[in-house]
Amino acid sequence: MAGRILVDGVAADRVSVLDRGLGYGDGLFESIRLVGGRAPLWARHMQRLAEGCQRLLIPSPDPDQLGHEVRQVGADMAQAVVRITVTRGIGERGYALPASPRPTRVVAAFPLPPVGDAAVHGVRMRVCQLRLAEQQRLAGIKHLNRLEQVLARAEWSDPAIAEGLLRDGSGRVISATMANLFAVIDGELLTPAVDRCGIAGVARAELLDASSSVRVTEVGLEALSGASELFLSSSVRGIVPVQSLDGRRYAPGVVARRWQQHWRDLGFSMEQGG
Amino acid sequence: MAGRILVDGVAADRVSVLDRGLGYGDGLFESIRLVGGRAPLWARHMQRLAEGCQRLLIPSPDPDQLGHEVRQVGADMAQAVVRITVTRGIGERGYALPASPRPTRVVAAFPLPPVGDAAVHGVRMRVCQLRLAEQQRLAGIKHLNRLEQVLARAEWSDPAIAEGLLRDGSGRVISATMANLFAVIDGELLTPAVDRCGIAGVARAELLDASSSVRVTEVGLEALSGASELFLSSSVRGIVPVQSLDGRRYAPGVVARRWQQHWRDLGFSMEQGG
Repeated sequence: MAGRILVDGVAADRVSVLDRGLGYGDGLFESIRLVGGRAPLWARHMQRLAEGCQRLLIPSPDPDQLGHEVRQVGADMAQAVVRITVTRGIGERGYALPASPRPTRVVAAFPLPPVGDAAVHGVRMRVCQLRLAEQQRLAGIKHLNRLEQVLARAEWSDPAIAEGLLRDGSGRVISATMANLFAVIDGELLTPAVDRCGIAGVARAELLDASSSVRVTEVGLEALSGASELFLSSSVRGIVPVQSLDGRRYAPGVVARRWQQHWRDLGFSMEQGG
Repeated sequence: MAGRILVDGVAADRVSVLDRGLGYGDGLFESIRLVGGRAPLWARHMQRLAEGCQRLLIPSPDPDQLGHEVRQVGADMAQAVVRITVTRGIGERGYALPASPRPTRVVAAFPLPPVGDAAVHGVRMRVCQLRLAEQQRLAGIKHLNRLEQVLARAEWSDPAIAEGLLRDGSGRVISATMANLFAVIDGELLTPAVDRCGIAGVARAELLDASSSVRVTEVGLEALSGASELFLSSSVRGIVPVQSLDGRRYAPGVVARRWQQHWRDLGFSMEQGG
């Protein structure tokens, strides 16, 4: 991984054990897909990161500096995922904010994960037992407190199952463990609200801004059984149809195909990593 | 800090940026007070850590090895706080558990924080606005997802206020930001349940085991206004009376004094760090 990781702008692969990112999950991250060194959704990633910093009271990093570092680590990779991690920086014991915070920036490039023919045929999903807790102060942003997602993903190990459906304590459907969810129900494209829990995905934001006909609403599990299409959105994996949910089958439909075309038009390929 | 930090048993002050502790807050910690190199509540810390590892599906570290490392970092300090951090170890991108997890152990010694005359006169507290989310899968254990505590502690900067009172979404009182809470109401000693949110403190466990007359129950904020005593329990700071809560005054009472004596009997001094 030499040369693929920068810590505060310097080639390195370690951070202080006193970093509050390690101590309390006190920070944020973004996973950004690069195509030929370019990040088609860059502005949206920077917008979410800035909002997260504002909500957590962490000084925002300079997007131009981050952009420079992202290009540096992903320079010679045709396809890559770059993870940016921003923490509140070093602090000694205790939750109180450091008087003079110096946030830590980690920028690391990874190969694009292989996804096979998921974009064509869709993926299999299951419903997770774990229920997301409702915390408005943290909902929507991509913070580093991800134990719920870790525990939900640990519910299955069958490699044929690609994703798990997450609900809140009241049974409302929220998202997949690492993607947002869209459903076509009675001809209308819906996606769950993420203002009480869940992450407001960058790909989800792209869809919402590109079409006024997508409705953000509460979605119950029963409603999904009447859906004509289900698909996932992920800034890394793109638009991925859901082939089945706990055995109930869905066919990739015209709405997913239309959004896959939109995705390609942004500059992403669906064939590799889509 | 040279010699005061061990990472996987070796003197070091950094961990990999790929550690899941940094990536997802995927781990646990214990803050342990040492007196003359000895940890009076060691067995309770190891018990909670083991339960946390079991709940998070992280292989438990060997308590004997941890004990050796704790003595090593705290060897020449008369009073110290040692933080043990155990993470799921290194993982590449994605929430799925590594096939062969190799947990990371960080053992770091810090000077005991000065607490002045808190044990004698008590501390001032305020009620926090932030409400703890309810997540039974994570309640009670001391995991690394601590953004709620960070945000709650960020609600005030007045150094005269030592602690903040945390409630859940339904208004139930749960704890302070870094201590458990006890209240004497109608002559009975009560402490809030922590099975939906909050941390089951090691000092709290000591009190519950040492006396059958402490009742674990739901406690509302209104009930506290009728309390004859309020006090905090913390494995680092001991038994600390609450002097005021949002302006309402309490006097350190006989119940707090009795538990302070129990604390001294365990081998802790109240005068320094109590």
